[in-house]
Amino acid sequence: MDLSQIEGFFKPKSIAVIGASTKPGKIGYAVVENLLEFHERGGKVYPINPKADEILGLKAYKSILDVPENVDLAVIVIRSEKVPAMIDDCAKKGVKNIVIISGGFKELGGKYRDLEAEIAERARKYNIRVIGPNCIGVYYPRTKVDTFFQPKNRMLRPGPGNVAFLTQSGTYGIILLEWSVMDGLGVSKFVSYGNKVDVDEADLILYLMDDDETKVIGIYLEGLGDGRKFFNAAKKVARKKPIIVLRGGWSELAARAALSHTGFLGGKGRIYEAAFKQSGIILAKNLEELYDMAKALSKQPAARGDKVAMVSNGAGPMVQAVDYLVDAGLQLSSLTEETKERLRNALSPFVVVDNPVDLTGSATPREYEIVLDYLLDDPEVDMLFTFFVHQNAPMSEDIVGVMDNIAKKAKKLRKPILVGAAGGPYTLSINKKMEELGIPTYPTPERLVAAAKALYLAQLKKL
Amino acid sequence: MDLSQIEGFFKPKSIAVIGASTKPGKIGYAVVENLLEFHERGGKVYPINPKADEILGLKAYKSILDVPENVDLAVIVIRSEKVPAMIDDCAKKGVKNIVIISGGFKELGGKYRDLEAEIAERARKYNIRVIGPNCIGVYYPRTKVDTFFQPKNRMLRPGPGNVAFLTQSGTYGIILLEWSVMDGLGVSKFVSYGNKVDVDEADLILYLMDDDETKVIGIYLEGLGDGRKFFNAAKKVARKKPIIVLRGGWSELAARAALSHTGFLGGKGRIYEAAFKQSGIILAKNLEELYDMAKALSKQPAARGDKVAMVSNGAGPMVQAVDYLVDAGLQLSSLTEETKERLRNALSPFVVVDNPVDLTGSATPREYEIVLDYLLDDPEVDMLFTFFVHQNAPMSEDIVGVMDNIAKKAKKLRKPILVGAAGGPYTLSINKKMEELGIPTYPTPERLVAAAKALYLAQLKKL
Repeated sequence: MDLSQIEGFFKPKSIAVIGASTKPGKIGYAVVENLLEFHERGGKVYPINPKADEILGLKAYKSILDVPENVDLAVIVIRSEKVPAMIDDCAKKGVKNIVIISGGFKELGGKYRDLEAEIAERARKYNIRVIGPNCIGVYYPRTKVDTFFQPKNRMLRPGPGNVAFLTQSGTYGIILLEWSVMDGLGVSKFVSYGNKVDVDEADLILYLMDDDETKVIGIYLEGLGDGRKFFNAAKKVARKKPIIVLRGGWSELAARAALSHTGFLGGKGRIYEAAFKQSGIILAKNLEELYDMAKALSKQPAARGDKVAMVSNGAGPMVQAVDYLVDAGLQLSSLTEETKERLRNALSPFVVVDNPVDLTGSATPREYEIVLDYLLDDPEVDMLFTFFVHQNAPMSEDIVGVMDNIAKKAKKLRKPILVGAAGGPYTLSINKKMEELGIPTYPTPERLVAAAKALYLAQLKKL
Repeated sequence: MDLSQIEGFFKPKSIAVIGASTKPGKIGYAVVENLLEFHERGGKVYPINPKADEILGLKAYKSILDVPENVDLAVIVIRSEKVPAMIDDCAKKGVKNIVIISGGFKELGGKYRDLEAEIAERARKYNIRVIGPNCIGVYYPRTKVDTFFQPKNRMLRPGPGNVAFLTQSGTYGIILLEWSVMDGLGVSKFVSYGNKVDVDEADLILYLMDDDETKVIGIYLEGLGDGRKFFNAAKKVARKKPIIVLRGGWSELAARAALSHTGFLGGKGRIYEAAFKQSGIILAKNLEELYDMAKALSKQPAARGDKVAMVSNGAGPMVQAVDYLVDAGLQLSSLTEETKERLRNALSPFVVVDNPVDLTGSATPREYEIVLDYLLDDPEVDMLFTFFVHQNAPMSEDIVGVMDNIAKKAKKLRKPILVGAAGGPYTLSINKKMEELGIPTYPTPERLVAAAKALYLAQLKKL
């Protein structure tokens, strides 16, 4: 496979929007609007519309064939019946990459299914790579290629980073990206590929395998066209970087719903589960887990072992974290006697010196600092779970400075550190600061433990 | 049981804070500060501190015995060793209700366990009802009784409403309350009872059974002292109003952690699960589910049946909702032919007219209005799941007005309506408006379906 042609989706010099519209609120208007930043940075954007001379300040052309310069990438947002003829025009123009946003293909069945087969055939014939149809396409923060039809004031875009998201559902893609923005999580490449008439997840992960910008790959998958192709690719890629997959439409009933979504039959019960795991893929249970795991793997190193130490100033979440720990294949560290001795000497007699360490509601940031420092020193500790009730009176924003120091020490020791804290605006603002320090935060112990499990599994893959 | 004495925790005329502090950042300072609003509304607050004359503008007393007027409720925040003597003082003063915030009792074992037994004995002897120790106590929005040691600028308090939260973990209580604020969910009564030396969840649910302010009860439970007492109470109460329970510390390993949290042995595997269900309790899988279910039951009527219709402008979440539906014991409605005919006549040929209804990315608020209106009319539909990608260009804030109309119609028909939508600030601001209309919103299909399940189970209880 020619991976450089996949690269063409992320690094075109010029983009034509076929079906560009003059009307705000229309999909063909939003796509042009979102590409203005690409244009402002020196990329060429050509709106194609038979009736317009100008759209959003850009000169419009009646046909892509009228564009005076080269076009690298075409984004198609016209009615499905008209798409095949446009593929011909794109070929004549020498376009190498096409993103088809429009729906109205395989997912409707009947003649629309034939229409999609027609596109597949022409793309193959012309050696054009196609993403879509029935998708929101590509977002690449570094060049600002952005084929979405979601205006920027309604949908935030994350900055550059090391997480690649691939998704069959545009909706889930949007959610993952906006969650990323809110946590300061950066994205390397994003592709929503919908009906995947040509480029599929196997092509994309093989491309991402050698993409230095990408550290972790998160995928939402409804149906596998060519399962063998995907699992073979995954086996190769998962040895180099972690792949997290969330599957949708695995129930019989949902399989039918998936069919009329992206035209793929999901279902097959949970038969495929073993194949996923054997390929070295980390399975996520739901969308939040997919995101939570990707965030952990983006910001923290893989865990060297399964032994966890916990500390909190409010024990409820720790009690539940222990519940989830066992199911996740992790274990509570038995602290060394030396560590226990150090803790006992430093802390009030009301603190239960064991793992988990319950600092109780009177804990101060300084006490956290002592405990976390000692726990990091303990050779029996591979990973730290730090729960906070920032709302408690004896706490303060000093905890941010404390965690900055602790995170630096943890990084040197390659021991992952995760934070659990939830609540209202005050706690969320501290969580945001923790995220900026590279410490991932989670609202519940269940979600924290799932993320920790991914850090542990990612390490196993490397053995 | 004298329920009027439980009522004393929520409606005292005067409150003494034993262990009030002059120092910001101290627990005994925060508690007095949080009671200032109770004071401003005409309640009496008496800080008790042997060394202070005044705290936060309130006259302080050396002992509760020095207070010139009656004291209804005492809040105790002193070291555990000193608590038993204070119970004696409270009895002499005629106090009928005590909240002990302080920890350092049963959860530490040994002599501290004896200390707690001592408190139990004295409370019984004096006929004083005690909440705690080792808790954050009581919050009642209508009178502003607020025994928390979390300053208000760090922890928001919800206004009055119909959800009662009871929790063994103060931390979880704080999170549930702040989540409530962010969704405009109102609270009837809140109690964090910690080690529950006296008042336990059985007492509290029996009190709430006849409390007209309470429509639904949500409980976080680590360990049952007297299981039979609780299940007998639950059986009675669940016939009148839904009880949702989240259990923590059910694993062997966590049971030990729970022991040093609130002094209760959780664990016993999942043995108790059947007992919970037989009592008519709705079990939540995690903290988010406990909250999500409580919100649904607070804002929406119980479902008359299990037949669900769905609509979206982005199908991914619907595909997953169908996955979760089956496990939740719900089913996809087979729309009547009449409904399908009406939908076909009204909608574009690109819309798949079946259940789920996929309006595709080009959907407008007006199309939602038509579809939801028709689906509500269908006798085969008991419940509506409405998913939104508000970020899409063809959508607009008009959807809020649309949903206002739909919610009113749904209310008349007693058909619950739930919304699924997630993303960044724009989507969250629309979600907030939906919440204000009484329509609960959920970020993922998994969480929406769990909430819907609670609406269905709540109805079954009444049959």
